[in-house]
Amino acid sequence: MATGGAQRDALAALIEALRRLPGVGVKSAQRMAYHLLQHDKPAAQALAGALNHAVQSVRHCTRCHTFTESAVCATCADPRRDARLLAVVETPADQAALERSGGFKGLYFVLMGRVSPLDGIGAAEIGAERLLARATDGVVEEVVLATGFTAEGELTAQALAAALKARGLRVTRLARGVPAGSDLEYVDLSTIAYALHDRH
Amino acid sequence: MATGGAQRDALAALIEALRRLPGVGVKSAQRMAYHLLQHDKPAAQALAGALNHAVQSVRHCTRCHTFTESAVCATCADPRRDARLLAVVETPADQAALERSGGFKGLYFVLMGRVSPLDGIGAAEIGAERLLARATDGVVEEVVLATGFTAEGELTAQALAAALKARGLRVTRLARGVPAGSDLEYVDLSTIAYALHDRH
Repeated sequence: MATGGAQRDALAALIEALRRLPGVGVKSAQRMAYHLLQHDKPAAQALAGALNHAVQSVRHCTRCHTFTESAVCATCADPRRDARLLAVVETPADQAALERSGGFKGLYFVLMGRVSPLDGIGAAEIGAERLLARATDGVVEEVVLATGFTAEGELTAQALAAALKARGLRVTRLARGVPAGSDLEYVDLSTIAYALHDRH
Repeated sequence: MATGGAQRDALAALIEALRRLPGVGVKSAQRMAYHLLQHDKPAAQALAGALNHAVQSVRHCTRCHTFTESAVCATCADPRRDARLLAVVETPADQAALERSGGFKGLYFVLMGRVSPLDGIGAAEIGAERLLARATDGVVEEVVLATGFTAEGELTAQALAAALKARGLRVTRLARGVPAGSDLEYVDLSTIAYALHDRH
């Protein structure tokens, strides 16, 4: 901007800080900064407060590694969960999706990432050792690999499955198949091929 | 998320605050929050600081209405600018684009918006009165309407042109035509039609 000097600083610094958010380029960052300063200063202040509060208070659950504000998250601390079952998910959002389905009553381990060879992220980087320590607590009997069915999610599941099996754990994977509510004609071919292969 | 209770609060509040950014839905907000807390806490702290600093220190230039940290922005305070020429732009980003072209030596008026009947934004909402007061300072001779060539930018230019002309000011509009560096075959038809009409 050509408005030079001191008055560039606060606005330029805000645009620069917004650009560090994932998926935000310079145009989006400008639009966000202008919007906040012109139309929604309360939102800017609320965001600043929420950022500071989250950075100070959010840490990782010592059992499942998800975000929490206490040493052990509420799910891990819940005695009604079936501690023999451990679902491995990529993110807290994936965990939330499993919870919403109402079909899983066990505990979780949240990887907070996935294997991605192109980015140099292997099993060690997503805490495979931590998962192995958690899964071999003597209570867990079955580990459900609930990583995504993307190429990276599949790689992650494969990388973890061998190590878990070697420790005598039963390892399962979410079933692939036709999504509920789908007309077959709109389902992609590889999904149909998997559904045929795994028919029961 | 099913991690319930107190530990939802900081993360959920952060996701909610990020959703108030323009163009950010719940999935993007989650991804941003996870990224900041997992991989880039310094970016979260930098953003919080930049937000607070900008909210506290950024205000509007009393002459051109752009964002500034002083009463009058550096451009308006620059005695080398030609005060007889006033360009009207929609945003500071548009002003910056004009500046980068190196072709304009006058002063600016930044609307911080544009007429948008569907959103209930008329000439009054984008400060037409303030522009008229600024343009009739006895020094300005020509107002260059440099709003965008979108439907809303054109409407804005039309809405302002009549009032400015009624006050005896010369009102011009940026030329429409074929962009520099373009092959004609890739230029859209209405641009070619305008370029033909305005040939010189």
